[in-house]
Amino acid sequence: MDVRKYISELGQQALNASRVLSQASTNAKNTALLAIADVIIENKNSLLEINNKDLVASKKLGLDAALLDRLELNEDRIVAMAQGLREIAALADPIGEISNLAFRPSGIQVGKMRVPLGVIGIIYESRPNVTADAAGLCLKSGNATILRGGSEAIHSNQAIEGYIQAGLEKAGLPASSVQVVKTTDRAAVMELVRMKEYVDVIVPRGGRGLIENISNEARVPIIKHLEGICHVYIDDKADKQKAIDIAINSKTHRYGVCNAMETLLVAKDIAQQILPELYQRYNEKGVELRGCDRSRDILANIKPATAEDWDTEYLAPILSVKIIDSLTDAIAHIHRHSSGHTESIVTEDISRARKFISEVDSSSVLINASTRFADGFEYGLGAEIGTSTDKLHVRGPVGVEGLTSQKFVVFGDGHIRG
Amino acid sequence: MDVRKYISELGQQALNASRVLSQASTNAKNTALLAIADVIIENKNSLLEINNKDLVASKKLGLDAALLDRLELNEDRIVAMAQGLREIAALADPIGEISNLAFRPSGIQVGKMRVPLGVIGIIYESRPNVTADAAGLCLKSGNATILRGGSEAIHSNQAIEGYIQAGLEKAGLPASSVQVVKTTDRAAVMELVRMKEYVDVIVPRGGRGLIENISNEARVPIIKHLEGICHVYIDDKADKQKAIDIAINSKTHRYGVCNAMETLLVAKDIAQQILPELYQRYNEKGVELRGCDRSRDILANIKPATAEDWDTEYLAPILSVKIIDSLTDAIAHIHRHSSGHTESIVTEDISRARKFISEVDSSSVLINASTRFADGFEYGLGAEIGTSTDKLHVRGPVGVEGLTSQKFVVFGDGHIRG
Repeated sequence: MDVRKYISELGQQALNASRVLSQASTNAKNTALLAIADVIIENKNSLLEINNKDLVASKKLGLDAALLDRLELNEDRIVAMAQGLREIAALADPIGEISNLAFRPSGIQVGKMRVPLGVIGIIYESRPNVTADAAGLCLKSGNATILRGGSEAIHSNQAIEGYIQAGLEKAGLPASSVQVVKTTDRAAVMELVRMKEYVDVIVPRGGRGLIENISNEARVPIIKHLEGICHVYIDDKADKQKAIDIAINSKTHRYGVCNAMETLLVAKDIAQQILPELYQRYNEKGVELRGCDRSRDILANIKPATAEDWDTEYLAPILSVKIIDSLTDAIAHIHRHSSGHTESIVTEDISRARKFISEVDSSSVLINASTRFADGFEYGLGAEIGTSTDKLHVRGPVGVEGLTSQKFVVFGDGHIRG
Repeated sequence: MDVRKYISELGQQALNASRVLSQASTNAKNTALLAIADVIIENKNSLLEINNKDLVASKKLGLDAALLDRLELNEDRIVAMAQGLREIAALADPIGEISNLAFRPSGIQVGKMRVPLGVIGIIYESRPNVTADAAGLCLKSGNATILRGGSEAIHSNQAIEGYIQAGLEKAGLPASSVQVVKTTDRAAVMELVRMKEYVDVIVPRGGRGLIENISNEARVPIIKHLEGICHVYIDDKADKQKAIDIAINSKTHRYGVCNAMETLLVAKDIAQQILPELYQRYNEKGVELRGCDRSRDILANIKPATAEDWDTEYLAPILSVKIIDSLTDAIAHIHRHSSGHTESIVTEDISRARKFISEVDSSSVLINASTRFADGFEYGLGAEIGTSTDKLHVRGPVGVEGLTSQKFVVFGDGHIRG
């Protein structure tokens, strides 16, 4: 197989489809989304069988349990996939909205129209439900999609592509609006991320290694989702109960998610009051604490944190704890060690809250709230395609609007520039 | 000189300055902008002398007249430079604005806060006034700047850096908020565009060669300004007088600018009525026409256009002309040959106007107005740092808001996720 030629053909077809999709009515796009949901449900049993093939093959290859769990589809997950598409159909269509339309002194009327990006390449790992979610968000925002999932999920992903294309055709939209890359050759990824003539943006979803590798090779712009090394800072002016609730929820609500807290910073003047109770609560949940020297003076039983701990996303019931002299030092620690995802302060002092929210340079900055709220659904964006830790284009949870651009539109009546 | 070490030091200093700038008050930033304007005026004679050194050296090197013109500062240009900074001071400060702050069902309040990007690297060619303009826009938007101008302007740029830094210090802001790269070694550019740890975005300004070269080497995201191959399409439902006014203004108002028309598309049913008069008007202005076969049936005296003409940004009194069968064909021609900068339709038909504005995928799309309006000042953005032909982050004229990002801010009162 000539990988370059194959990917280039996918690109050309996606570009052609994107021209149609960019002009598709809201009704046609929603009809397609609902039809895809129906086709997925109709083919539930067949999809379970196909997914089982992927599972059996992956087990034979000795892939680990976490990956197998992500790869596995069951009845609930398939129903959730269809439900996700129906929820995307229910979202407002961002395309075509003209904002800030105003007359200028010259007499022309200038506004900004929201338009699709064009062709979006999505590179992801084992979860086959991403195939439907990502395709749905891109479709709603008028973009064509080229999807490259993990090789372990190739049969599941191709089956889902078939359901998506059937739904698209029912709505009279081009089947090639959504295409799954059918080779597991790694060279296909490199072609895809360098194909500037057809692809407008790449969204990589996966571990740090995948994302750094793609960032280094890509010529197409990327919306990156790096890991979440998220912090909660408990200020000495914090309400003790709020601090404990937020510290517990931020760590223990779910462990394997990017908006879970990984490091707890505690102001020195409140540490003695708060750490023993927190320790007990974490202990009940089976969370291992790793502390700085000063926190170990208070909690004698916990392990020492090493330099590496402050830069680690555990995604596990492990938490590093550090006692901090001041808010300024907390912000300095965050600037140095945060991945720019999400940070929260617990304080009753408005000046400190204002300073934290102004100075901390992360995609979400919270006051007196759990880091677990940093999420597209909680923020009211509807579904999300990921959480951008980039500063350009879109930052934080990325919903349909993050998959669009704006062009200037000008209305005149024969106006010329003098 | 160790170029890597030198650029890395500039980067570290810029990052430190950006932390201060991001928190600087509107008043401090405006004080600095006005102080810089004053210092430039105070040092006018000295700057003229230093600029003359650059001019003499460039003449000795045999650089062409257009470049020498761009390089030259005179009294008017220096006054304009200072005036530009005063106008930037008068713009609204975008930083810190919180928009869409709304309560969510969970009880948290979520909004988006506008924040600086951080450190912006600007790579440009001969015009020394860009040094002051770009530094001013970045300063207003709370960003630190590393400027790398053309080697031919190095003395002028270093002098301007001195005035800027003097003004910054008067306002109590870090001098290293604005730094000019002091080596003409090309390796410095490559270091700058790969220094992801310190630089948030690169804005290249210059010819296609410069921009493509930087795009290929960069690891830092880029806001590209490619050339403007702009089109005017005269529909057969156009008002004849508006069509002629717009076609003349779009081409002849200024030739060397990216929003000048380079190709005129004319619907076949109006060509006979309109082309002879247009030919005469262009002829009076000394504009050379190059036409397709059908337009040469009407205008026997004009040169034939070659395939290359449809992809050429003349920046000169030359215009390619093509007769087109339909609006659909006009849009197809634009999709194929436009650089995505600016296109205009002249028509009295609202359905055709709506189709054009919806389907044409360029940064500015105009109805019955000259392409020359595609400009930050005309759009009400104030000054501009360039015109983005990218789709991501910012598209069209880039003013202070294009140099910012938004982070999510969340206000809670001890809220946790259930």
